Amino acid sequence: MPEVLGELFAGIIFGPYALGTAIQIYGIPLVEFNEILNAFAEIGAIVILFIAGLEMSFARFKAAGIPSFIVGSAGVVVPFFLGYWVYAQLGFPFASAIMVGAALTATSIAITVRALDELGKTDLMESRITINAAVIDDILGLAVLSIVVSIVAAGITPKPLEIFSTLIKVMITWLLLLSVVTYFLPQIINRAAMWKVKGSVEGTAIALCFGLAALVSGLGFSPIVGAFAAGMAVAESRAIKRVREFTNSVALIFSPIFFGVMGAVVNLNRFTLNTVIMSGVLILIALVSKVLGCGLPATLYFKDTWRGLRVGVGMISRGEVGIIIAGIGLTAGVLTGDIYNEIIGMIIVTTLLTPLLLKRVFKEE
Amino acid sequence: MPEVLGELFAGIIFGPYALGTAIQIYGIPLVEFNEILNAFAEIGAIVILFIAGLEMSFARFKAAGIPSFIVGSAGVVVPFFLGYWVYAQLGFPFASAIMVGAALTATSIAITVRALDELGKTDLMESRITINAAVIDDILGLAVLSIVVSIVAAGITPKPLEIFSTLIKVMITWLLLLSVVTYFLPQIINRAAMWKVKGSVEGTAIALCFGLAALVSGLGFSPIVGAFAAGMAVAESRAIKRVREFTNSVALIFSPIFFGVMGAVVNLNRFTLNTVIMSGVLILIALVSKVLGCGLPATLYFKDTWRGLRVGVGMISRGEVGIIIAGIGLTAGVLTGDIYNEIIGMIIVTTLLTPLLLKRVFKEE
Repeated sequence: MPEVLGELFAGIIFGPYALGTAIQIYGIPLVEFNEILNAFAEIGAIVILFIAGLEMSFARFKAAGIPSFIVGSAGVVVPFFLGYWVYAQLGFPFASAIMVGAALTATSIAITVRALDELGKTDLMESRITINAAVIDDILGLAVLSIVVSIVAAGITPKPLEIFSTLIKVMITWLLLLSVVTYFLPQIINRAAMWKVKGSVEGTAIALCFGLAALVSGLGFSPIVGAFAAGMAVAESRAIKRVREFTNSVALIFSPIFFGVMGAVVNLNRFTLNTVIMSGVLILIALVSKVLGCGLPATLYFKDTWRGLRVGVGMISRGEVGIIIAGIGLTAGVLTGDIYNEIIGMIIVTTLLTPLLLKRVFKEE
Repeated sequence: MPEVLGELFAGIIFGPYALGTAIQIYGIPLVEFNEILNAFAEIGAIVILFIAGLEMSFARFKAAGIPSFIVGSAGVVVPFFLGYWVYAQLGFPFASAIMVGAALTATSIAITVRALDELGKTDLMESRITINAAVIDDILGLAVLSIVVSIVAAGITPKPLEIFSTLIKVMITWLLLLSVVTYFLPQIINRAAMWKVKGSVEGTAIALCFGLAALVSGLGFSPIVGAFAAGMAVAESRAIKRVREFTNSVALIFSPIFFGVMGAVVNLNRFTLNTVIMSGVLILIALVSKVLGCGLPATLYFKDTWRGLRVGVGMISRGEVGIIIAGIGLTAGVLTGDIYNEIIGMIIVTTLLTPLLLKRVFKEE
């Protein structure tokens, strides 16, 4: 089982809403939210997205191929609008509804890749399209997040034309940023690799990651978008292996803290019949939107429903990006604690479900 | 040159007392002290001492040999009492004087080892005694720190008998703790190494490090003493290589922050003629106490003044432990900003001087 689940459950169980306040050491609760814990969690999110960027270089992004682009784009657009539409119909405010939509977009590449790997099916054409589409989907999901954050920050319900102009502006900024950093960052890392000094590459890489996160945050985007772009750019350098090993070590500390905190924010006491029903609705949206949204274009491409279905099922899993978006929504006051709980519940269920469903749809070969 | 110097100077230059408040980004000073920065620096100190512990296993401690024990002990006792005596004579309060004494005790193993290595002299008997004595010296220096912290926490000027009983109590607790953890921790790490899971050893090691630091802190010692004991114990396990690689990666982030913060606390505006003179006095104490304190017993052992002098000179360098002790003294309000500045100045000068002096005394062979 993916370790993210263990970290989330550790947070839920030992968090301040469950055992956290009950277990006291020297009269101080075992876990309490404070500035320091939040700083660690925020750094965790930045490191997680930097690693995600490292795994998918700009070259790989360009090489994904037309079918993957189409499947990946559909896998963002359909869940976003379906999530938004359902929540808007249910009477939730505009800002909450688009945040839920955004949290539904990004497929968890790690979980899908591991599941396909365990089945020994990574070489099949449908698997390759699924993985590449999940890459595209992650990038577009972050673009959607940037747009949503910009809209929410503006604090008003914008007109469609404004949404469209924001969309264009954000996309252009993002592509511009990516081109610039993909040109410069690998050169900086390669230069650092030439100094035969302990830690030269590692220190430079982490400085670029946090530097770009800070810069992008200053420009009004979410800092994780900058960390992701930095990762994609650094992935082009020759010292990529050293950077990956180092960042994975760093993530061993920060990433469990991030997922633990995200789990700790879940308040089990708030789970009522209503939230359970709403979680069910959200899970249904998550399943249907990806299976149809990605499965249909894949079916048309393969001219084979079964193979199309495999792609659709492979895209179901949600993970870290969804959790990060839910956390941003909660912190910004746009999502209620209930909706946050529902999103985490949806992510846990899709994470558990995807490997089981994938086994099914690949069995019938 | 040792990277510690670069990190300290970066802190001094970009700290809030120099350029830090001058350089503003979006109206916010580049560097300001806050809870988060302090938490990072504290974690840095814990990680640095954990690594120091990893480098010197309990086995190596026991194998150091009688001459190294004597040289190392003298290298703690002489600087401590000389520092204490001079500062007490100059009219400083008891608590300040013993804190200065404590900050003078620990030799910087890293700097001396590197200098001997560059000279190609690590195999000589006097070099081996120097390195082993520096190990003993580090452990005793931390024991002295524990005693000093206990005395300062009590808030009174204790009678000699009380100091003696505290000394005995602290030493027994320390040896007991070390025996217990050296028995259990390697087994825990070896067990973790048997799970063939990414991060099992690394996660366990870091949990033991911070767990023991917290426990020891609860017992009234400084947390870094616990981290050091954890490091010494973990060094006995079979997975030591994995732990070292991982911890070095982690230190690449936390350790520059620690030294940067320690440098940033130095307030250049406070350097007056008086503090410059006092820095000179402190540097003199640092040089004389180690050269005589370690050089004399070594001379008696070798029956050769020149070889004894080499050992004495090799023990001059001060480093991270001294900086950590100075930081604790400043935070506890026991050291003034002036004395803190003088200690950092002394550490910088001895760090620069030791390699130069070592070259001299080894040349005349």
